[in-house]
Amino acid sequence: MEQRVSLITLGVADLPRARAFYEALGWSPADPDADDVVFFQAGCMVVALWDRALLAEDSAMTDSGGWGGMTLAQNVGSPEQVDALLEQARAAGGDVRRSGAKTFWGGYSGLFADPDGHPWEVAHNPFWRLTDDGSVVIGG
Amino acid sequence: MEQRVSLITLGVADLPRARAFYEALGWSPADPDADDVVFFQAGCMVVALWDRALLAEDSAMTDSGGWGGMTLAQNVGSPEQVDALLEQARAAGGDVRRSGAKTFWGGYSGLFADPDGHPWEVAHNPFWRLTDDGSVVIGG
Repeated sequence: MEQRVSLITLGVADLPRARAFYEALGWSPADPDADDVVFFQAGCMVVALWDRALLAEDSAMTDSGGWGGMTLAQNVGSPEQVDALLEQARAAGGDVRRSGAKTFWGGYSGLFADPDGHPWEVAHNPFWRLTDDGSVVIGG
Repeated sequence: MEQRVSLITLGVADLPRARAFYEALGWSPADPDADDVVFFQAGCMVVALWDRALLAEDSAMTDSGGWGGMTLAQNVGSPEQVDALLEQARAAGGDVRRSGAKTFWGGYSGLFADPDGHPWEVAHNPFWRLTDDGSVVIGG
């Protein structure tokens, strides 16, 4: 198995609401007319929004209805950019559950949940390198 | 917010077991000596394994204990490669919950759960392009 992820699908209760949230953060779907699954090209991979009940069925999973042990993160270039992105997420209707602060591992981060409760940590990690195309490289 | 994901963290109940599973699939951690968080460089992003209770706390989430509406996928080059990877996952201790079969969207896929129940779809999508470095591109 190659050491990579091709696609992350986020199950959502209300596709137009979820799409509007990510669009408010500046994301653009690959197909502007999509109304069943919304795909976003995200660097080397794809992020999708799809009906949560259909995703549960397709994934052969019983839906807990809550959080299931996966958290996403976006790394940015500075603590100030962490705070700015958390504010952007709040303005878009996200739920900032942890404000930006220094972390135990020597970085700076905060966390918001999207309208479906999916958590995104926003982090500045001085030990990892962000490349010009937005990739993150462990150890710099 | 840039249209990308830097990190996916998978909450796990038993870190050595989870690490051994991904290593059996051919993955190599960035730091072979890591014993608290295991990071895998995965193309433009990073996949991490971390204690699920600590991840829940860090993510400001209440843990449902089950699946929470996120599913990962790895795209491969052919239906035969889907079947081969599902067999590899089964041999490594994964739970193949959906065998390889044609899908409603015109591709071919199956699905396994890792030892912590995190679902991975394995898919051949003839409408997306896989590049030499393993990236996936919507629409080819």
